[in-house]
Amino acid sequence: MMFSLLHTCRKARAGEITTDHGSVPTPVFMPVGTQGAVKAIEPRELEELGAQIVLGNTYHLFLRPGTDVVRACGGLHRFSGWNRAILTDSGGFQVFSLQDLRGITDDGVEFKSHVDGSTHFFTPEHVVDIQRALGSDIMMVLDECLPYPAAEGEALLSSRRTLAWAGRSRERADRTSPYYGSSQALFGIVQGSVYPGIRQSSAEELAGMDFDGYAIGGLSVGEPTESMYRIAEICTEILPVEKPRYLMGVGTPENILEAIERGIDMFDCVLPTRNGRNALFFTRRGKLNIRNAAHAADSLPIDSECDCYTCRNFSRAYIRHLFKAGEVLGLQLATIHNLSFYFWLCREARRAILADEFETWKAETLVELSSAMNQPQS
Amino acid sequence: MMFSLLHTCRKARAGEITTDHGSVPTPVFMPVGTQGAVKAIEPRELEELGAQIVLGNTYHLFLRPGTDVVRACGGLHRFSGWNRAILTDSGGFQVFSLQDLRGITDDGVEFKSHVDGSTHFFTPEHVVDIQRALGSDIMMVLDECLPYPAAEGEALLSSRRTLAWAGRSRERADRTSPYYGSSQALFGIVQGSVYPGIRQSSAEELAGMDFDGYAIGGLSVGEPTESMYRIAEICTEILPVEKPRYLMGVGTPENILEAIERGIDMFDCVLPTRNGRNALFFTRRGKLNIRNAAHAADSLPIDSECDCYTCRNFSRAYIRHLFKAGEVLGLQLATIHNLSFYFWLCREARRAILADEFETWKAETLVELSSAMNQPQS
Repeated sequence: MMFSLLHTCRKARAGEITTDHGSVPTPVFMPVGTQGAVKAIEPRELEELGAQIVLGNTYHLFLRPGTDVVRACGGLHRFSGWNRAILTDSGGFQVFSLQDLRGITDDGVEFKSHVDGSTHFFTPEHVVDIQRALGSDIMMVLDECLPYPAAEGEALLSSRRTLAWAGRSRERADRTSPYYGSSQALFGIVQGSVYPGIRQSSAEELAGMDFDGYAIGGLSVGEPTESMYRIAEICTEILPVEKPRYLMGVGTPENILEAIERGIDMFDCVLPTRNGRNALFFTRRGKLNIRNAAHAADSLPIDSECDCYTCRNFSRAYIRHLFKAGEVLGLQLATIHNLSFYFWLCREARRAILADEFETWKAETLVELSSAMNQPQS
Repeated sequence: MMFSLLHTCRKARAGEITTDHGSVPTPVFMPVGTQGAVKAIEPRELEELGAQIVLGNTYHLFLRPGTDVVRACGGLHRFSGWNRAILTDSGGFQVFSLQDLRGITDDGVEFKSHVDGSTHFFTPEHVVDIQRALGSDIMMVLDECLPYPAAEGEALLSSRRTLAWAGRSRERADRTSPYYGSSQALFGIVQGSVYPGIRQSSAEELAGMDFDGYAIGGLSVGEPTESMYRIAEICTEILPVEKPRYLMGVGTPENILEAIERGIDMFDCVLPTRNGRNALFFTRRGKLNIRNAAHAADSLPIDSECDCYTCRNFSRAYIRHLFKAGEVLGLQLATIHNLSFYFWLCREARRAILADEFETWKAETLVELSSAMNQPQS
């Protein structure tokens, strides 16, 4: 994996990640393919929308279908029919979110499967091994994810453990090789809750470990939005400029623009896909709940400035009908549009950075996104 | 609407229906788009598979979104984003299948909505009016559908009522015009349960009413398969050769081949789409339940002779995983494949008829379809 920083506009960055499964212009939004599939959309449709990279969840794929099945089927790319880049998370976020977390030691973390109740133990080394079997283009180190709020002492201990795990992950990756002939990068993860000092020392220590990229984890877990922005900024000031920065699990369109302004390159979030399946649409003029009765005979498209399949071919009235009638097609059309919107947002942000006009573009865009101009039209 | 009978091979027929929304080679399988959408597949995907006509349900669309919404949105074609041909049923089958059928008189039928419990009354005239508002290319007359078994006296009375309704429907259609500038054909429906005499006189009387096509209703409701074939044959011997014949709600691949052999041109059935959503796949070598553990690491496609998107890109192991994990993508890929299989079946039947080899092709195909050669391969 290579990263080229092409241009900066103050702290905002336009770049390009090159993987053995294609190149990824940044800033980039990565759709979440939890179980080896982005929900309710086909791989060819993701390609059509311009997706260059999707996320897979190590925790979920390890439990089902299991690492052995994915290996037998030639790795996650071949198994899932997705030939562009894949980033796999470490499973840390899922394991630490579980009700059935059984115990954490310096060695690793024990947990119970949400699928069948079986007990498993993840170590940093084990998690690298799983991601080798998955064959993702970008692997993530196992990290400890604290809930919000967390006491400072707890956050310090946890960040130290995460750093130790990062070192072991780096070592494991250096001593193992990819199975499928394509290279696999490894990203470190900065933790430390909302404590600037802990985040700073974590970022500094990780920066010395020569990862291929750096993620900022443990945010978007309930802290005030301003804390998220501040911590992201503290981290990007320390992390090496020549490596991509990934803000995990973020976020709303507004969050993404604010984070880009602070030097973040990569994002992932379930919002566009999950909101879509709940009949909530993102548009250039604000959000739209298609179940609203005002749209019953509304012949406008979801977003008249959008060129996705959904907006080119279907009215709000029809899509509302699909949701009211419980038709799967509603989920499909919503997923296509909302992802199209997120890709448009990142594409436009990149264009604005390259044109040295990110700040004005961002200010105008935020005004439009917060407007409520979705008037129905019969 | 025009129908050209191009070739016959004994009783099997190859033809072409021409509508203002494109031409439809026959024999044809029509996917069921109950609520204005074929479940779990996009209109562009139906086009890609070669679908030339889909079915819409008058009963469902009348109740939701309602005739006024469809009219306000320019008719069912524009509303649903489907620009090829549409056949709408009369709602008769749904109304007579309801638990909450309130009463039937010679004038029409009263029923309660399954959506909101409201009471409605369908007359033959009303049902034509609704289909005018939907703007389908082929409208169906309101008919009385008896359950199986039905006593002969009851079947006789019911078929007489259905014939009277057919006359009133014909008259209503003759006195009204399409709303959207494209012509709308009207099909009569032969009823009469499994009683040859009633079916014969029904078919004869309907044949005299000059419908654009003729359907055989009230079959595939629990009667022995041999009765279905026999009744279909009795009807096709009487119905005018220059008009298309439509066997409603049929059926399995085997049913379709047997009916084509007896002179049927058109079919509709929920089997390929519904079975698909239940993880049951049709293949050239028999049926396949993808949830079977034997497919856990099976790298074969669903049907190696199929060229659909599903079979070109995904393994049985992956599709099994999607169903086990509850991913919507599983429903999408299953629907694409099963419809592709049904279209292939009708296309091949037509080719065999045109090549004067329908009987041998049918015999060979039935053997293959009943085989169990879906061996997993790791």
